Amino acid sequence: MINTSRVNRILDKLSGLDLDQLLICDPTAIFYLTGKWIFPGERFMALILKRDGAPTLIVSELFRFDEEIGVNKIYFKDTDNIVPIVAGCLDERKHLGVDKNLAARFLLPMMEERIAVGFLNASIAVDMTRSVKDEIEREKMRQASIVNDKAMDKFKGLVKTGISELEVAGQMLDIYKSLGASGYSFDPIVAFGPNAADPHHMPDDTRLQEGDTVLFDVGCVLNDYCSDMTRTFFYKAEPDAEGKKVYELVKRANQEAEDMLKAGIPLCDVDAKARDIITEGGYGPNFTHRLGHFIGVETHEYGDVSAANKNLTEVGNTFSIEPGIYVPGGIGVRIEDLVLITEDGREVLNSYSKELEVIG
Amino acid sequence: MINTSRVNRILDKLSGLDLDQLLICDPTAIFYLTGKWIFPGERFMALILKRDGAPTLIVSELFRFDEEIGVNKIYFKDTDNIVPIVAGCLDERKHLGVDKNLAARFLLPMMEERIAVGFLNASIAVDMTRSVKDEIEREKMRQASIVNDKAMDKFKGLVKTGISELEVAGQMLDIYKSLGASGYSFDPIVAFGPNAADPHHMPDDTRLQEGDTVLFDVGCVLNDYCSDMTRTFFYKAEPDAEGKKVYELVKRANQEAEDMLKAGIPLCDVDAKARDIITEGGYGPNFTHRLGHFIGVETHEYGDVSAANKNLTEVGNTFSIEPGIYVPGGIGVRIEDLVLITEDGREVLNSYSKELEVIG
Repeated sequence: MINTSRVNRILDKLSGLDLDQLLICDPTAIFYLTGKWIFPGERFMALILKRDGAPTLIVSELFRFDEEIGVNKIYFKDTDNIVPIVAGCLDERKHLGVDKNLAARFLLPMMEERIAVGFLNASIAVDMTRSVKDEIEREKMRQASIVNDKAMDKFKGLVKTGISELEVAGQMLDIYKSLGASGYSFDPIVAFGPNAADPHHMPDDTRLQEGDTVLFDVGCVLNDYCSDMTRTFFYKAEPDAEGKKVYELVKRANQEAEDMLKAGIPLCDVDAKARDIITEGGYGPNFTHRLGHFIGVETHEYGDVSAANKNLTEVGNTFSIEPGIYVPGGIGVRIEDLVLITEDGREVLNSYSKELEVIG
Repeated sequence: MINTSRVNRILDKLSGLDLDQLLICDPTAIFYLTGKWIFPGERFMALILKRDGAPTLIVSELFRFDEEIGVNKIYFKDTDNIVPIVAGCLDERKHLGVDKNLAARFLLPMMEERIAVGFLNASIAVDMTRSVKDEIEREKMRQASIVNDKAMDKFKGLVKTGISELEVAGQMLDIYKSLGASGYSFDPIVAFGPNAADPHHMPDDTRLQEGDTVLFDVGCVLNDYCSDMTRTFFYKAEPDAEGKKVYELVKRANQEAEDMLKAGIPLCDVDAKARDIITEGGYGPNFTHRLGHFIGVETHEYGDVSAANKNLTEVGNTFSIEPGIYVPGGIGVRIEDLVLITEDGREVLNSYSKELEVIG
């Protein structure tokens, strides 16, 4: 059912862009607004929001559904030209805000036929609305991370000498499902030894040996919302002195960045807090990515925690805090939690221990 | 490594569109041309082809790679504006062909900055090239379907009274992997009983009973190329008279459509051949979809076998032939093979039996 409060928050933001009409085509944004998942593949789909009048969903008749979701439905056939159908929903004397993801094969014909006086990427109105989770979403985010905490504990139990990263990763989906999740929020990263020093490592045939680092960067989807957490363990032996130093630096960067969180802080300052700690520890060049990303229905949503983002945190933001140090060919450590900005400060959505832990 | 013959075939087709420069952003098309998979997520990526000069790949520095693939590489940072970078690769006095999938968030700023005199969806040049598989691709398509045939035989062995569709589907990925495939080409359809009458049924908790129809619509990826096949079995009992009639009609529609195939036939005539057989049998309204789709690196590629497609078959086309009859709440049967158009006529890439078979 259409979520009128979310629609109204978007329409408010459209005012700021001097727009009265918006075409949304991203299936995730349409789910966010209607509660209905439709994946039209290569076919056109649009939810049209207008200041005056109910939302209209334009979708292929192949995805026809009876359920009443509080929008006008317009179905088209594969042989129909969608341009006049869209035009029929618009005021051609006004500008049209379009989805950032609207494909050239749809946008160029609309521009040629001048179905609006101008076209503007207006996804910022949707993205900024989605970046502030409402109460229902906050609770779903909490629940997804609770499952992720439980899963991490089970993943830790999978390791044994000689097992490969792929063999460990191959058991994760069943574990998530046994905990009630519907699937991964992203393909899990399992990295042994020097592989942990590649932040985007994909599980391979590397086999676990005593003394290895064991990094899990994992997440699941529960009730349509994503979790995402990283923990770095050590297999059967404490790390060496450098390893310990790196671990404690990353842990402190994670902890102090989380501790400072509350509404109204520039996101770049949060990144700087963690980065400064790592830089002062001598590993600045080895922290090669931003501190975090926003998350919700999608694992990566609009907004990040980076030097470039001067925006202020708002109550309802959910994002990751994931500092890392990567020494190529050597040690790699990342520690990541999800956080929620609240009226009182923040909630850290993961409660899994961050103390240095030898496993196996 | 860049495939010069494929690039040249695309450039030839660009001539027909009066274009000298083309921007490709689809990761699959870029893999097709370079042999390199890069998934930049929300970040910009483009392979620029020009009649005069080597191809240029513009990609985020996060996806930097050392491998020499025969293209100029331009890396950008997240803080860079990509519009002038793209402009630097183009002749602004000429039109630019763009990818059908180029997102509005990239296209609109390029148009605003007038980095070309006009913008045109020119993906047809890539799509038509991809629809004619070269020898290397043909062999990969054959091999992927050989694996699919072997897998079908194993899937048949999974059924037993009381097992659910999801429990059967849950075992398929391991079977594919044990046969050397890297994964699914699409989520498998497993449909028991009346569920088979929904052509897009997703496996659920329905449990198998004696007398049920068992429909498997399944495919895997092997060496980056897709297979896709459907067979419909009957569990522990022959279907009733209507079931037998429906099965034989679908089988004949599949067989006669395949038998007529050779280069130079309108694809709509192939659809008509199968559709007429089913219509004459009294089930025309129950064959609710097109006869087939093109396939290759992707399960659904440009081109289909439908009443709307007047294009002629060409040597090197690979597509599905998948007639079906769906009686809501009653019987559902679909039989699907992949075919390759050859100099001599056609090869049917699946050899799995299509005779009515009682299993279990």
